[in-house]
Amino acid sequence: MRDKQSELIPGGLGGGQGELALLNRIRQRARGSAKDELRLGIGDDCAILRLKPGEELVVTTDLSIAERHFRLAWHAPESVGHRALARGLSDIAAMGARPLAAFLSLGLPKELTRAHGRRRAWVDSFLDGFLALADQYQTPLAGGDLAQSTVAVADVVLLGSVPRGKALLRSGVQAGDVVWVTGALGGAAAGLELLRKGSGRKFSNARSSDKGTGQLRAHLWPQPRIAQGIWLRQRGAATAAIDLSDGLSTDLGHLCAESGISAVIDATALPIYDGAMLDQALHGGEDYELLFTARPDTSIPRRIAGVSVSRIGEIIRRRAGQPYISLVGASGRRPLRRGGWEHFS
Amino acid sequence: MRDKQSELIPGGLGGGQGELALLNRIRQRARGSAKDELRLGIGDDCAILRLKPGEELVVTTDLSIAERHFRLAWHAPESVGHRALARGLSDIAAMGARPLAAFLSLGLPKELTRAHGRRRAWVDSFLDGFLALADQYQTPLAGGDLAQSTVAVADVVLLGSVPRGKALLRSGVQAGDVVWVTGALGGAAAGLELLRKGSGRKFSNARSSDKGTGQLRAHLWPQPRIAQGIWLRQRGAATAAIDLSDGLSTDLGHLCAESGISAVIDATALPIYDGAMLDQALHGGEDYELLFTARPDTSIPRRIAGVSVSRIGEIIRRRAGQPYISLVGASGRRPLRRGGWEHFS
Repeated sequence: MRDKQSELIPGGLGGGQGELALLNRIRQRARGSAKDELRLGIGDDCAILRLKPGEELVVTTDLSIAERHFRLAWHAPESVGHRALARGLSDIAAMGARPLAAFLSLGLPKELTRAHGRRRAWVDSFLDGFLALADQYQTPLAGGDLAQSTVAVADVVLLGSVPRGKALLRSGVQAGDVVWVTGALGGAAAGLELLRKGSGRKFSNARSSDKGTGQLRAHLWPQPRIAQGIWLRQRGAATAAIDLSDGLSTDLGHLCAESGISAVIDATALPIYDGAMLDQALHGGEDYELLFTARPDTSIPRRIAGVSVSRIGEIIRRRAGQPYISLVGASGRRPLRRGGWEHFS
Repeated sequence: MRDKQSELIPGGLGGGQGELALLNRIRQRARGSAKDELRLGIGDDCAILRLKPGEELVVTTDLSIAERHFRLAWHAPESVGHRALARGLSDIAAMGARPLAAFLSLGLPKELTRAHGRRRAWVDSFLDGFLALADQYQTPLAGGDLAQSTVAVADVVLLGSVPRGKALLRSGVQAGDVVWVTGALGGAAAGLELLRKGSGRKFSNARSSDKGTGQLRAHLWPQPRIAQGIWLRQRGAATAAIDLSDGLSTDLGHLCAESGISAVIDATALPIYDGAMLDQALHGGEDYELLFTARPDTSIPRRIAGVSVSRIGEIIRRRAGQPYISLVGASGRRPLRRGGWEHFS
């Protein structure tokens, strides 16, 4: 992260001074969370990280764009920062990895970098949410980039570490495996529906200390399942894992396609978030729970690191022309197509 | 890099199919360049990389935004892809590191992802430029993200490796050191001036196989100095290094501020790019040459890995109130203020 990037169009984020001031604020605040592996953070051409012996690196990047991944009118900036980081941490969790460091590339319209009277600048509240979650998971902000942009964009890079060859992958699932999921599903989609209707505005604009309740909380302040991923990896309990970012039907579809198998999901066994609907649990994205598979003789506890775990179905051999996912419920068995967010269009 | 990201607004880059097709094209093309250290590339929640024993990791991210870092009307998409990657590779070079892998987060308006008659989609030509440079430096594309955006943005993450504790840093410079620079300066700024005047349009819209000449080439197709950085690091020749992305006056200013010293630059010794002006060599950004310092008794050859190297000044103790950089020329000695792109405003 540097205080001036080469730009065709002269002038920094808020003029040279504004950008330098913002960078210095970020640099100061990023100093709080050190980590053995981070040898050099913000300030040079690159950050430097050192892995512990026997570990390998996992890397993920997630782009969050205003009016697409979040809405300036709906989401408090603290929640935007929290969610932008949670997406990457959830990918780290799905590998059974431990987060090492985050990098943040921010493109922002000038007005989001300026204080308005007593109100702090949007970007400072964004950083509040981002850094609070980063602290919670001991993930130092190690670098990034700043630029002016007509639309607010945040690209978040997460680095994590995992013992060599031990990462949880999407492949590895076999016929006969049991399908498990952490937590409850559909809460984030139900919370988004509240924001869409305008009835969630009060909470979405609340400060991060007041995190609302129920579905809004699930949507605005999702918790990556880092401890649960590490638990599964350490015990060798999972044959495959994926995080539920795009919805069960989409993400489980990836898992099945990756290994050429099918899944049968029991609708009555799905842990539906309080106040959410079945369709939201099946197709709603951004729950950031972990979906994993395990051999049928592997013992999985009811809770892992304080979060409930539910058995929701099983893996079967895939026959040509058969759907990747079938849903079994009171009304019989039907194919479950990839839904994800297309469901709401 | 995944085929569907959680999005508030339904629909992918070019509709679900278009996005999936684009992701598959990227995935296919990324398969070309394997690397021992890359254990798992595009397709899972994270990529997995393994470092060689005794090495540590360097990481940099660079955000490129349309109409700020490039102009859709001025820059051929191949050049935009090349330049977006060159920025990160140049940071890797400045650490004396070897590139390991790149990650690409792309936010694009729909029209840039669609072919128009016989003309390929903008994004495919962007990838041509990006992947050609990636191949040249054995840097596999290991992941990233895709989203729709009203403005084109590309965030490029570069990972590199360097023997532990051996990275070239901005700190480490001492009074008495000599200041060196690779290649010639000001070419990229002069090339940009040609584009601004419209006289470079013919070349900027040319395919990547026809790379134009002179200053335009310097602007459109900058070459990161990877081999030169590795040479300096392997021989322990440099006390500090930085890449010239924002202009000599800005970047050397960083180096001086980092170590609390001053530099005296000899205007007559500056290697000015053919056709560029002194001011462009002093303040123009995006040359991506390496600036480094060395002890006065360190022997530096005239060329390193085929690129000329020039001695341009020396480091002196800094007195309170003195400028970080002084320029000595025929007309005497004057302070050199941070210019960079502000010069053109």
